[in-house]
Amino acid sequence: MATAVSPLAPKTVPQLPPVEGVRLATAAAGIRYAGRTDVMLALFEAGTTVAGVFTRSKCPSAPVEWCRSQIKRGRARALVVNSGNANAFTGKSGRTATKLTADFAAKAATCKPTEVFLASTGVIGEPLDARKFAGVMETLAAAAAPDHWSHAARAIMTTDTFPKLATATARLGGTDIIINGFAKGAGMIAPDMGTMLAFVFTDAAIAAPVLQAALKESVADTFNALTIDGDTSTSDTLMAFATGAAARRGAPRIARAGDPRLKPFRVALQTVLADLAEQVARDGEGARKLVEIVVEGAVSKPSARRIALSIANSPLVKTAIAGEDANWGRVVMAVGKAGEPADRDRLSIWFGGIRVAHRGERDAGYDEAAVSAVMKKPEITLKVALGLGRGRDRVLTCDLTKEYVAINGDYRS
Amino acid sequence: MATAVSPLAPKTVPQLPPVEGVRLATAAAGIRYAGRTDVMLALFEAGTTVAGVFTRSKCPSAPVEWCRSQIKRGRARALVVNSGNANAFTGKSGRTATKLTADFAAKAATCKPTEVFLASTGVIGEPLDARKFAGVMETLAAAAAPDHWSHAARAIMTTDTFPKLATATARLGGTDIIINGFAKGAGMIAPDMGTMLAFVFTDAAIAAPVLQAALKESVADTFNALTIDGDTSTSDTLMAFATGAAARRGAPRIARAGDPRLKPFRVALQTVLADLAEQVARDGEGARKLVEIVVEGAVSKPSARRIALSIANSPLVKTAIAGEDANWGRVVMAVGKAGEPADRDRLSIWFGGIRVAHRGERDAGYDEAAVSAVMKKPEITLKVALGLGRGRDRVLTCDLTKEYVAINGDYRS
Repeated sequence: MATAVSPLAPKTVPQLPPVEGVRLATAAAGIRYAGRTDVMLALFEAGTTVAGVFTRSKCPSAPVEWCRSQIKRGRARALVVNSGNANAFTGKSGRTATKLTADFAAKAATCKPTEVFLASTGVIGEPLDARKFAGVMETLAAAAAPDHWSHAARAIMTTDTFPKLATATARLGGTDIIINGFAKGAGMIAPDMGTMLAFVFTDAAIAAPVLQAALKESVADTFNALTIDGDTSTSDTLMAFATGAAARRGAPRIARAGDPRLKPFRVALQTVLADLAEQVARDGEGARKLVEIVVEGAVSKPSARRIALSIANSPLVKTAIAGEDANWGRVVMAVGKAGEPADRDRLSIWFGGIRVAHRGERDAGYDEAAVSAVMKKPEITLKVALGLGRGRDRVLTCDLTKEYVAINGDYRS
Repeated sequence: MATAVSPLAPKTVPQLPPVEGVRLATAAAGIRYAGRTDVMLALFEAGTTVAGVFTRSKCPSAPVEWCRSQIKRGRARALVVNSGNANAFTGKSGRTATKLTADFAAKAATCKPTEVFLASTGVIGEPLDARKFAGVMETLAAAAAPDHWSHAARAIMTTDTFPKLATATARLGGTDIIINGFAKGAGMIAPDMGTMLAFVFTDAAIAAPVLQAALKESVADTFNALTIDGDTSTSDTLMAFATGAAARRGAPRIARAGDPRLKPFRVALQTVLADLAEQVARDGEGARKLVEIVVEGAVSKPSARRIALSIANSPLVKTAIAGEDANWGRVVMAVGKAGEPADRDRLSIWFGGIRVAHRGERDAGYDEAAVSAVMKKPEITLKVALGLGRGRDRVLTCDLTKEYVAINGDYRS
């Protein structure tokens, strides 16, 4: 198991302010790991709305199924997240474990089980012994406080090498509101919803359907534009909780998705999600390079996205970047296999702003030494111009190193 | 560059018999490598028919474009294959190089340039200096002989660690005919046509359209059911040449695809292609395990194929196999992300014949020690039963090791 912090980790961990109406606590329930916390409880004040997007896997985890069935009500009083066991592919015992966890949490939070949301991450296929949460929930509820953000982010880590936190503020109708978020994820990350666990908390007063629409819109170019290894988790969960507490300070209650006052909230939400998604890319298993893939001149944005993902998921492109080689031939290969419209003789490719290929041939003028210097940097932008249309998109990924193979071959996550 | 022979290599290299009407020669033209052959010329007697299937990449190599435009005529007198340079993404100079190579070969073979077929493999994006073939083609034509199969297979290798050869015979209308084949490929291998270079030679008398139909049919469950890394080459080429020489010994001339006398030929062709495809999987870059993925109970065969490929291309499944861990949780993940109909609660999974998961849960009865023994073997079958329908398919792949990353990160192929 990798323990050294990723060299791409942010230099500082942001200090998150309290979000009125949210309290957090963590504990060690002994699910799998020794000597660390592995369960997190968030309590929400009455009236908190909830929205969520989940994995598109046809084999989702039991907590994903639980959340899907509860989220339509749009109300949340508690969130329980455990690491160490994903409670995925656990059959009937998985459903029993989610029900039992929700019952424990509801009792501790004095709410209905249907107001409890759940997420689990860790090993797949091992039954989760939810009885271990029995006394823990009461302890957590008693200890819950507004300032445990960093502890919460740490309690849900698996192969992550650093906690992932982000915060932003927005001005809604003259009142500042806060959006806090944290996420986990380092492997089994591919864009098909959120592809990890991520939670966002705000004191803004946003009706559940509006929150849902804003979340769905924001995920497209953040978590869904991210891939570590092309593998989609069975547990991917992104949920947003809005306590509405800011309304007491004069923030407007937003009930319609078209409300113009929502704009600053959307911007701030996008900022928080983009920040968290980038942190996940920076913690890609074994990653030594953060790679931004930009595709422009495609026939459409979805076409640009598919080409960008074909490049981002290509083992040959990713290993070349690990080897600090600007191997644009492999980029051509990845463009060619994407199945999207592309014309070899119009294709141009840049590494770190240096054009290495132009109109289907090596760029005769490019400076090998300058490109070599670019490839040694920890952050690399790879741009492809197709010259066909105005479709543009961007995805984030990382390189593929021997450490990725070691982490995933030598350790049963 | 990997030089040690793959531990999965066949124990013996088959001795290929002559195919009447085919002569071969190899030479060192100094394209890229030192101290080894890098060009192969095959000469065919007049009347030889040809068929081919090529990469579906939108950015194909210049030789692929050359062959596509010539193959419709259905006639071949020469085949030139070079290694060291793929002549891909080389713009106008690439087209000039193919034309010049064909001209040199046509002069040496005393045929038309349009009867010369070309394939190149190696680095992408470097101009191929075809002038290096100038004197070489005459020398090759003079030296061409019926018994140079193993030399030919060696001359076209790049990161391959062993030459890949196969042969079969079939009885057509009372006369034995021969099918010989050789192939190269170890990385940038994914099923979308042939995904490598492979050449098949027979003395049977088969009209070009019939040969084309037979080739296309045979590729579906052989080369197209193979993936090393999910990356599709710009140069994938599979061609079949039928000299018709066996007609002089009484073999029938087959002009219709529906001719029942074609049956034994189809079977033998399938055998040769399956053999070569398996050898490519056995030489997967860095591979230590040959992995057969069987999916059954899918809603259709194409659905089973897509699920099998999702498993075969999953870095997490491949690294787990490299680590000799029967991590069926990752198999569930790969089934789930395939986007095909699947019902978690009907899913069963076997490693090497041992059922480890049944109806959506870990198989309570499975013997960890027995599974562990299976995972240590160099050849592993992974079976998934979906329990939905009668769709079944099978693909071949290999594990993902640190050596794959080293080969593709430390060496510009």
